[in-house]
Order: sequence, then C-alpha cells, then structure tokens
Amino acid sequence: MNGNRFGRLFQVTTFGESHGEAMGCTVSGCPAGLELSAEDIQEDLDRRKPGQSMITTSRGEPDAVSIKSGVQDGYTTGTPIGMVIQNKDARSGKYEPFITAPRPSHGDFTYSAKFGTRNWGGGGRSSARETVNWVAAGAIAKKLLALEGIELKAHVNQIADIEAPEVSFEQMLEHSEENAVRCAHPESAEKMQDRIAEYQEEGDSIGGSIYFEVRGVPVGLGAPRFDSLSARLGQAMMAVPATTAFEFGLGTEAAEYSGKDRNDDWEFDDDGTPTPVENDHGGIQGGISSGEPIYGEVTLHAPTSIPKEQQTVDWETGEVVDDAQVIGRHDPVLPPRGVPVVEAMLALTLVDFMLLSGRITPDRVDGNPGEYETDYHPSNPKNE
Amino acid sequence: MNGNRFGRLFQVTTFGESHGEAMGCTVSGCPAGLELSAEDIQEDLDRRKPGQSMITTSRGEPDAVSIKSGVQDGYTTGTPIGMVIQNKDARSGKYEPFITAPRPSHGDFTYSAKFGTRNWGGGGRSSARETVNWVAAGAIAKKLLALEGIELKAHVNQIADIEAPEVSFEQMLEHSEENAVRCAHPESAEKMQDRIAEYQEEGDSIGGSIYFEVRGVPVGLGAPRFDSLSARLGQAMMAVPATTAFEFGLGTEAAEYSGKDRNDDWEFDDDGTPTPVENDHGGIQGGISSGEPIYGEVTLHAPTSIPKEQQTVDWETGEVVDDAQVIGRHDPVLPPRGVPVVEAMLALTLVDFMLLSGRITPDRVDGNPGEYETDYHPSNPKNE
Amino acid sequence: MNGNRFGRLFQVTTFGESHGEAMGCTVSGCPAGLELSAEDIQEDLDRRKPGQSMITTSRGEPDAVSIKSGVQDGYTTGTPIGMVIQNKDARSGKYEPFITAPRPSHGDFTYSAKFGTRNWGGGGRSSARETVNWVAAGAIAKKLLALEGIELKAHVNQIADIEAPEVSFEQMLEHSEENAVRCAHPESAEKMQDRIAEYQEEGDSIGGSIYFEVRGVPVGLGAPRFDSLSARLGQAMMAVPATTAFEFGLGTEAAEYSGKDRNDDWEFDDDGTPTPVENDHGGIQGGISSGEPIYGEVTLHAPTSIPKEQQTVDWETGEVVDDAQVIGRHDPVLPPRGVPVVEAMLALTLVDFMLLSGRITPDRVDGNPGEYETDYHPSNPKNE
Amino acid sequence: MNGNRFGRLFQVTTFGESHGEAMGCTVSGCPAGLELSAEDIQEDLDRRKPGQSMITTSRGEPDAVSIKSGVQDGYTTGTPIGMVIQNKDARSGKYEPFITAPRPSHGDFTYSAKFGTRNWGGGGRSSARETVNWVAAGAIAKKLLALEGIELKAHVNQIADIEAPEVSFEQMLEHSEENAVRCAHPESAEKMQDRIAEYQEEGDSIGGSIYFEVRGVPVGLGAPRFDSLSARLGQAMMAVPATTAFEFGLGTEAAEYSGKDRNDDWEFDDDGTPTPVENDHGGIQGGISSGEPIYGEVTLHAPTSIPKEQQTVDWETGEVVDDAQVIGRHDPVLPPRGVPVVEAMLALTLVDFMLLSGRITPDRVDGNPGEYETDYHPSNPKNE
Repeated sequence: MNGNRFGRLFQVTTFGESHGEAMGCTVSGCPAGLELSAEDIQEDLDRRKPGQSMITTSRGEPDAVSIKSGVQDGYTTGTPIGMVIQNKDARSGKYEPFITAPRPSHGDFTYSAKFGTRNWGGGGRSSARETVNWVAAGAIAKKLLALEGIELKAHVNQIADIEAPEVSFEQMLEHSEENAVRCAHPESAEKMQDRIAEYQEEGDSIGGSIYFEVRGVPVGLGAPRFDSLSARLGQAMMAVPATTAFEFGLGTEAAEYSGKDRNDDWEFDDDGTPTPVENDHGGIQGGISSGEPIYGEVTLHAPTSIPKEQQTVDWETGEVVDDAQVIGRHDPVLPPRGVPVVEAMLALTLVDFMLLSGRITPDRVDGNPGEYETDYHPSNPKNE
Repeated sequence: MNGNRFGRLFQVTTFGESHGEAMGCTVSGCPAGLELSAEDIQEDLDRRKPGQSMITTSRGEPDAVSIKSGVQDGYTTGTPIGMVIQNKDARSGKYEPFITAPRPSHGDFTYSAKFGTRNWGGGGRSSARETVNWVAAGAIAKKLLALEGIELKAHVNQIADIEAPEVSFEQMLEHSEENAVRCAHPESAEKMQDRIAEYQEEGDSIGGSIYFEVRGVPVGLGAPRFDSLSARLGQAMMAVPATTAFEFGLGTEAAEYSGKDRNDDWEFDDDGTPTPVENDHGGIQGGISSGEPIYGEVTLHAPTSIPKEQQTVDWETGEVVDDAQVIGRHDPVLPPRGVPVVEAMLALTLVDFMLLSGRITPDRVDGNPGEYETDYHPSNPKNE
Repeated sequence: MNGNRFGRLFQVTTFGESHGEAMGCTVSGCPAGLELSAEDIQEDLDRRKPGQSMITTSRGEPDAVSIKSGVQDGYTTGTPIGMVIQNKDARSGKYEPFITAPRPSHGDFTYSAKFGTRNWGGGGRSSARETVNWVAAGAIAKKLLALEGIELKAHVNQIADIEAPEVSFEQMLEHSEENAVRCAHPESAEKMQDRIAEYQEEGDSIGGSIYFEVRGVPVGLGAPRFDSLSARLGQAMMAVPATTAFEFGLGTEAAEYSGKDRNDDWEFDDDGTPTPVENDHGGIQGGISSGEPIYGEVTLHAPTSIPKEQQTVDWETGEVVDDAQVIGRHDPVLPPRGVPVVEAMLALTLVDFMLLSGRITPDRVDGNPGEYETDYHPSNPKNE
Repeated sequence: MNGNRFGRLFQVTTFGESHGEAMGCTVSGCPAGLELSAEDIQEDLDRRKPGQSMITTSRGEPDAVSIKSGVQDGYTTGTPIGMVIQNKDARSGKYEPFITAPRPSHGDFTYSAKFGTRNWGGGGRSSARETVNWVAAGAIAKKLLALEGIELKAHVNQIADIEAPEVSFEQMLEHSEENAVRCAHPESAEKMQDRIAEYQEEGDSIGGSIYFEVRGVPVGLGAPRFDSLSARLGQAMMAVPATTAFEFGLGTEAAEYSGKDRNDDWEFDDDGTPTPVENDHGGIQGGISSGEPIYGEVTLHAPTSIPKEQQTVDWETGEVVDDAQVIGRHDPVLPPRGVPVVEAMLALTLVDFMLLSGRITPDRVDGNPGEYETDYHPSNPKNE
C-alpha cells in the first residue's frame, strides 16, 4: 500500500533515506528455529555495497547490519526480526543544486510533486540505497529456501550492446562473482568492463540486463491469476530501481513462436512422473510452478545521475539550467550491484509462496506445532 | 493471496470456471454517485467475447452481465457491486482425453498437482474465460478514470514476425477496433490476419504483443518501491493469461541506451511547469507518474491448445500419447481478444492509485463527505 | 478495507442489499477435496432465515443458496466458491417515509452522510440480511474445522433481565435448537419468550446476549499482538450487526479478580502435558490459544426498527416528525437469529488461524502437495 | 497476518522483545508536512514508561525514542518513519526458573508451544513492553487527528470493586494525569490507590478498566460490516495486552435496554443538521460514525506475574512446582499505564479511517497533490 512492505506471509517492511541516519527493515513471518547470524546477512550485503570496484560508486559504506530482535542464541524465535544499518558516509552538499532543479529522469520531480517536499540528500528515499534492506531480508529468505533444496542465482548477461552467450546454472554459480561486472561468462565480462569504462570516461552511464534462474522449485507454487507466480515475480522485479522490463521463459521472443514450437511435450521421467521434455515455458504453467527451473530476465536502464551536461529547470528561480552536472559518487552501470538485489527479490517472492503453499510451515522450521521443547534453545541455563 | 482478488482500495474479487454455471465478480471500493448501467459494462464485454470473427473461438457466449447489487436508479451507491455472467455454451466432452493426460504447456498438470484435482471442462479456472470478470470490473474503472480526464487504449502491435510501426494515441482510438486483429495500423492488420490464417491452417497457433498507452495521468501516482506504479503494473500485466514479458518506456531496449540518451531534459511548459522534453522514461520516474503518457508493451505467447499433434503422457494409464490433438474451440492467437483485458488491468491499476492518492475520493464521486442529500437519488418517491 | 471482506487466507467477500436482486459471496482459500453440497450450507441458512417463529420477522425468504463455482462432483476444487442467494420477498414501500427522515439509531443517516445516497429499501446494505452471506461461508468453515476435531456452538444466554444459568457444552449442543429463542436452558428459554412477547406487544424491542464456546482448538493459534486470537475475534464479533460488547473468558468481571484468583495453575495431564487446572483465562493466553475451550459473550442491542412512535426529522422538508413508526417486518429481538451468525464468525476466524498456522494445509485437505491423482475425482469418465 | 502490523493506510510495523537489544517500529502512510519531533513522541512515551510511581514496575527504562528516517527539518516527508527505542535495564536472571516451567496464565506456555522456543527474558515478545512501539506511533496519529479537530482521552474508571462515577470529557482532560492511577475522579483515584496497595502488599495484583472518549469525529467513518468502526476498534482494543472485554456505547448493559429506551430520537441542531437527541448509541450507527462522541470501555485483567506462590510444572524435569514466585519488577495493576496505550490504539484506528475516507489526504497534509513547492522545506540552503 505504502510502498515499503513486500510479501504476504513472509513480510519485509523497510525504512530509510540515502543520507538519513540509518536504513532498516523488519522481517516478520520467518519461522522459528532457523540458524541465523549477522554474518549470514553480511555476506550478501557485501556483494551489494558501494565501493567494491572502479565501476561502483566510491561512497564508503561498511553496510554493517545489526540484528535488534527475533534471534536468540543463533536461532530465529518466530518473532519479528528488526535490523538496522547505519549510514556513515553521506555528503549531501553535492545535491544542493538539485533541490528545486530536478535531475533529468530521476525521481526528484515526481517525489517533490507527490509529497510537496523530499529528502534531497543523495536522492533520499528514491535512492537505490533502499535496496540494502531488501538484500538483508533476502539473505534470510535464501537460508529458508536452501533448507528446502531451492537454489537461485543471477548474473549480468548484457551491458550496452554486449550480450553474454547462454551459460549453465553451474557456470553462474562458479563464475558470476569472479569479476566486477558479475557476468558468469569471463570473456563477455571483460568486454562489458571495457564498454562501461568508455561510457564512464565520457561522463555518461549505460544500461544492461540481469538473467536469473531458480532450481529446485516444487510443483504447485502460485495462485492464479492475480497472485500467479509470474504476476508476483512481475511486481517484485519491476520494483527493482531502474527496471524497465521483466521477462520469464521466452520473454519477448514468445511473440514469434508458434504454439507447436513453444509448447513442451510431456514425457515420463524415471520415476514415472510427467515431466516436460523442454523448458520453453520457463518453469511456470498456468501461473503455477511446473517443477522445471524458473528463469527470466530483468532490464535496468542506465543510471540517471551522470556528470555529462544536461538541461534542467529551477522551479524556484524560474531559470533554465543547461549545464547541470551530477557530480556525486554514482555507479556508471546498475546490473553488477543489481545482481544481489534481483536475487533478494526472487528469494523473497519464492519463500512467500513456499509459506503460502504450506511447504514451509509458518511457525517453525521443524513443523511440529504444539510441542514446546526444541533443541534450538541452548541459552537455557539449566542445560549448562 | 488466493489469486482471485486485485486492487487495494478498488478491489475486484472473482469466481468461476470456464464450463461452470457462471462467472462472477464483486467490485468494492467504487465511490457512490457514478452513473452506471449494465450496458456500460456490456460494451467492453462484447469486445472480449468469443465468436467475434474467424480468428476467435466459435464458442457462443452472449456474456451478458447481470448487476446484482451496488447500483440504484442508475448510480452506484458506494456498496459492493455484484455481477454475474452465466456460462451458456459449454461442451466439456472434448476435454475428456486430457483429464489425466495434460495438454502440453497448459495449466492442466500444474493445477492437478497443486490441488490434487481440477475442474477439467474447458480448462476450468485456468481458462482465459476468467478474464470476462476483469473486463466487467475494468469497465467500471474506466468510467471513473474518464471523470478525471484519464483515457487509455491498447492495440495489437505484433503478431509473429509482423510488427506494426509506431502509431499515435489518436490512431489507436480511431483504428484499433476497425479490424479483427485490433491493430491500429490497417496495413499491418491485414498482414497479421494473413499470418494468423497460415498458422491456423496448419493446426497451429502463434504469439504476439499488445501496446498500451494512457493519457491524462496526473503527476504523483505510485508508492515506491514495492508499490511503485511500475511494480503494480508489472503484477497486473503479468497476471494476464499467457503473458511472458512486460515492458514500459524503452523496455528491453533500455539496456543499450546510455544515460545521456535515455534521460529526458527538463524544460518549462507554457504554464511554467517543469516538463520533460521527451518521454523515453515512459511516464514513470522513480516509480511515480511524471504526468507524461504511460506506455508499454505486453507479450503473449501462442495459445497452447492446438489441433496439431503433440506428445503427452497419461498418469493414470502410464501410457505415452504421441498424437494428442486439442480439438475444442480455441483462439489461434491471443492479443486481439487480449486488448480489452490489458485495458481492464490498466484501468484497475490506475483507478486504485487514483483512490490511494486521494484524487478520486473514496466514498463518493462528488467528494463532499458528511452531506446527506445528493442529486443522484431520483428514486425518492417524494421527488415525483 | 471496504468492509465486505473477512479473513486473510480463508477469505469471504460479500455483496448484496436487503431489497436488491440477490445476496452473494465468494469464498476463496478453501482447500480442495472438501466434500461440499448446497445442502450442507442450507442447513445453517435455515437456522438464520426469517419467518421461523413468532419472534422473527415474517418476511418470506427461502434463502436457497446456489453454488456457482469451486465445487465439482461434490468436492471443492481449491478455486473460489461463488454463491448466490436470490432475494424474493422484498416490499420496499414501507420504507419510503424514511428515505430522508432517518430511523432513530439505525444506519439510515450515517449511510446517507457517508455515501451521499443509500439503498433505502429494507435498510439496503445496512440490513442484517447481509449476514446470510456470512452464514453460507461459515458453513464451509465449520466443515473444515470438523475435520480437525474442532466443534463450536452458541446459544442465547440473556434477554432483557433474564439470564440463563451456566450450561455445559453438551447442553448447548442438545438444547439450544429446541426452542425459538435458541437458549439451551429450557426454563430460561420460556421466560425469555414471555419477556420478548411483552416488548413485542408494546411495539417495542429488546436486547440480549449470546454465549459461545469452542472445543478442540489446538495450542498455538494466534499472532500477537495485532492479530492475536482475541483481537481477531474482537473484530469478527464486533462486526456482527447490533453488537455493543465482546468479552472472552471472565470478560468485564476480570476487573474485580485478583491475579491469584484469575491465574490458572499448571498441572500435568495424564500424558505429561502441562494443562491449566482451571480455565478462567478463556482458552487464550498471551493472545495465543492454550488448548482449553475458548468461550465468551457477545451483547446485541435491541432492534432499532420498532412500531412504537419515535421522533425523527426530514432533512428534505425540514420537518420534525414526532410520530414515526417503523411498521415493516422486523425482529423484536436479535440474539435468536444471531446465534448462527456468531457461530459463522467464530468458524471463519478459527479456520483462518488453522490455515495461518499450517494445521489446515492451504491447497488441499489431504495435505499432499505435488501429487496429481486423488480419490475425489469421480467425474473422470475413465473411471466408469 | 504476522501480528506486528496494524492499520491499512496508516501502518505501524513493530519489532522487539522485552529484554532484547531494542524496540522499534516503522510508521508508513503518514502524509508529508506534519510537524514532528522526537519530543512530540517522547511526551506520550513518558506517560507509559515504567518507574513512574509506586504502582508501576521499577524497571529503569528512559524509553528515549530515536527517529531514523521520514522526518526532515522538523516535518514529515511522506516516507516511512523509522523509530528505535533502546532497551537499557534488562535483568533476565529472574526469569530463568520459568524457562521450562510456565508462569500461570502468562504467554510462556503458548509461545513455546507455538514456536518451539521463546525469548524468555522478561517475557520476550509477549511482554507488554511491546506497547512502547504503539505509543510512539500513536503519538504521530494524535498529531494528525489534532489537525482535524479530533481529540481523544482515556482514564481509569475501575480498579477492583471501586468504580469511578461518570466524568465529563473536560474532567478527563483536566484530572486524569494528576494522579498515579490516571483516574479523572480524584476521590476515586485515592480509593483505587489504596486498594492497589492492599493487593500489592499481599504479593497479589488486581484488574480494572479504562474508559475512553473521542470528540470531533466527523460523520461517515467506517466500512460496514467487517471494517465497521466498531469492528476495527474491537480488533485494536482486544489487541491491548490483558484485555478481556471491549464495549462501546451502552456495552453489556444494552442487553437490558428496550429499543425505545436505547434509540436516540433525531432533532435538528441550530444549523438544521439532523442530530441525535442523546448518545446511547456511542457515536456509531450501522458501523459508521454519527458525529457524536465515541465512547467505550476496555477491561484489563490483573497482571499474571505475582510474587504470591502459585503452582506450575516443569516440562523438562517433569516436576510439579507448587511454590513458584514471580519476583521480577512487575506492575500490580495495568490500567494506569494502559491509558496511553488505549489512547494510542484509538488514535491509530481513527487516523486510518480518516485516511480511508479521504478526509486526511494520503500524500501530504496540505492536500495539494501535484504542487512541488512547499513551505515546509527550510533546509533548502538557497533559502538562507
């Protein structure tokens, strides 16, 4: 409703502005008994954080997460998990020229028009810094999914005109974190890096896309129509800052496929279970998971904050400014840091459906409601 | 949650299976005082209904809507609007072979695996027949939007390899309903029709895409992030049966645009209001409407039910069936009948945001809460 | 949000006005595989319907439910269950005097002030006739609860100054349906009936209360705080038309109990499970079910529509009307027909928590997600 | 759903355990432009905080709120308001005996049975300490309501057998904060204090009740049935820890009122507006506010944690413990500290309905969507 909550049973609720005091989120609906530490979460936060390489902003944020509640003795308790991440390295001064002279295609104007004000430092609430909360929540979702044998991965498959060839899930797991671009195809990664450098040198930025894939999803997730797996993935992915397209399966190419070509015949697998011969359907049939891998793509447009001169207008002075330069510390390209964000939204969407289908039990991971003793309570001093 | 409800303040809740007794929906959150009759709704239903032309299924459904509540003397009363549409021409016999032998890439298998059963006649709940409810609800949403000066239209811009050139909004209004394909570019429409016929003759089907555009959207709609305008449009459009891609603005092409090229400079319009020089951003900046037209595209894969022989397996008999033919009455292509469905989802999404932003007042269209007399109450016998 | 939906996972969405064409509701979130027929539902509808006795309105409504979807061959399919109940015996003429001269303490004025109009025939949407939908949905909830060993019952325990003594659950089951008052204590029932007759003869009406009890609730239902079992029961019961108080456990008497007196000591039951020695806590501790019976009370004020002369004002003519008589066909007392309504809300609340806790599995009653064959599919012609 | 969120448009989401690191909440849906500082919130927190007097726990919590986001230069920005309150004075040692031997009638057993674990220090999540978050959020709601002329107040009207006589709203405003009991009738307050002391000396505790009243509510709030004003107040109040009854208007007494006696005749007020002659209906008719003051009562049972000996069982050792004494720092009575909590829930419920009815505009308090300049932006360095 208000834009800061995602999920039905597994809910994340966020707060925070780019240059505010802190970012934070509350995760509720996580069953009790999940082993969880700040380190588990930090790992993904480090993949998203700024300052990782030449092609990410140099803002110096440690992005250290502090868990305030919901975890005891290393295990979740079933109650809300409050997390806070302090903002450290905010330098708002550079944003002053844009308070009443909106940056082209950024959220400056629309935020001010909606609210009659906006937190202007660093883009405030409209900054992609908000996604630090998503990644923190997503790390918990991933841990729950892993218990159920669900594994997911994303990598950058296009920057500008450079498209990586198709790679296997295993290649994604192995190679996507090896380079600054997060492309699982090393040669393409190199070319992408060069292309990014070209735009960066010109004071410009460039778009790209992220490919994602999920393995181990059971048959039966999704509530057609409005809450079909594809509809909820659509919402999740289109929420990612700068996203302009979401595709699954054949995506836009499906327009040119005939029914005969796209349809996947059925065969029996070794256990006698009906299995599609191919996976042109992208793991979703009739809005419900088919048991095959779910895969798709998200397109992110170029960062709007660029040093290159652009024209804006100042609504306070009435002046046209034709040499506006956004000098801050900005990424020249979004997909590399977007990879953990896409993974987080994927995990949050799927864990929600796992809870909604009853496959993950809502109160506790051991699934034994009504029992009042468990192993995961080592802090009981009687145990010493 | 359960897949049959859409909207937060303007809510539509649906029921019905393709070959069940009736389809129906309940619209709640529609303000009082809107002039509304069954005819208003019927107009859009007729655009979606089967049997319109050679390229739509020949199932003979009048799709006549009956309003059961929420309207009095031709005006809405602010209370839930119940609507029922009887199913008339259901012939389930042709679906018997597929009860335990799922049609390739249809929802047969996933529904059965999720629920352990399914209404198999005509695809049951998984049939696109469900969208008759959406169109009925969408017609109400359109009427409300029209009061606020918001106009929307969709047309078919691609079938197979045939892409229509860009058309203006005015051309869409004028031409899209002139031909059976619902393409606003007459020459392309003809080519599309021919191409569809080719596939149809081979017992095959084909995919395509729908372009949509909205005029008159005020600045400030959308609640970033998770409820941004793009995120909620993403959910809405990906819920449309057979959708595999949703794009807005530059869509997938944004990957190849630099920031400088995609960014839209600001200028002052005649009133001194900041206005983007172009509209590469697609009417949404930072997840919030910018006041520029919102436009985008939806890709629909080819219908899965085709007469051409395909392979399936019967999980009851254990047999492999390599000559399965889906003979029912099926569309060879989805976008033409999908146009009113896409428009409905667009309208439902936007009217919800208009209510959420307070621009449409929730209780009554006249926006005068606390007053207890109105013009729209002609049935008062004292008035006679 | 809009007042016509109840439940989170098990959702009922209603429409209909007292003198409109039909009442109706859509139940979603009911798992597949539940045996269900219109007769199952009719039984409870008949307990609520008008014209049962001298102390209920003589309006002649058969209240016959028609199931439009979601059931196949006598079993639910997991998809939305659409139900419609035609209104037959509506005589709106008697309501004409009150169109612009609101009945005292009825919803006439507030509805008109909120919406600027209202469906005035028979009270329109504000009529307790709406609860016919709740009872229909509640009958399905009861069937699901019965599968889990949960049994619930309500009876009238007070009318005017006549309070029935405490009765056992077994007495409620046995006696509450034996008399027109629905009081499980026969002597009290007789006195209540006499008292009602006294008020009725004077053209007046009278209040009363309903006691409810639930057996077999497992430990662990409820999500403190805002969704605690008591909070959600509070919402459910306060939604019942004419309710002015909701109590559980000791209710208002708890103000005078000391901690020592109210607290229930723990002992081990025969299985070695901790069990409260008494049940002053009313089956809910810390907002979560304790496994003990849940019991409480709902107070319903006297029906506001009475033949006795009252004063109102006509906002159209500006006249004060000091001899307004509401002559329609109205109940002189609400609790007797309120019993099935309270039971319905109790069942709807509990079945929702059973789903939310994972004890009832969301997709199917057999709880075997991923399997695609079941017994409850007799219509498969291959089985013949 | 998960128990830590309240509200539809004005949402508060909470986290925190009694002896955890911090309590916190996120408020979303608060319009931009509301003047707000930590001090505004602190005032109410100080009324709720422990250690205020002899009849409250001596736990030394400053309960200092820190606003992390959503406020800029002293005004809200329309984005989520994150608040954190550190826990300072937690002494968990005293709770060790109860880890596996549940306190009578507390949430110890039900929490452990639901989650298979629980944060046992200080009652963890089940502690009424959670309400510190509610009061923080409620303070913001109160400020918004004040802008609309809505004023609300609660006071303690019963402790044990001592009932305060009816007091006026003005008396509540003037006297309720003058004494430790928070009873607006000074003589009764004194008696109540004595009675509490008696129970406290015996190592026991005692119940009581809170009366509340709201002035200035406009006609037309509430969405019958399930979201009627009374239903949502029912949920809100029954969520307050230790509540066993919620009443509005005549409450339980309505059972003994005839229709004629309870009904409120209509007259015209000086402006010619229909107005009820009396207010036996409690400000709500047909589930919608009538414009008259809303009033009611909440009963809170005695605190369950008492030094007096009680019997419990240890599920780990299998022992019956017949001399369990809860020695911590506990309140002997709840209503005095419950007053700000009840006020907070009242405010949160009402502000939500004000937003839902469009009377408070969702994006900004000035209600001018689309304008992008406002006064409440003093930090603009250009203004210096």
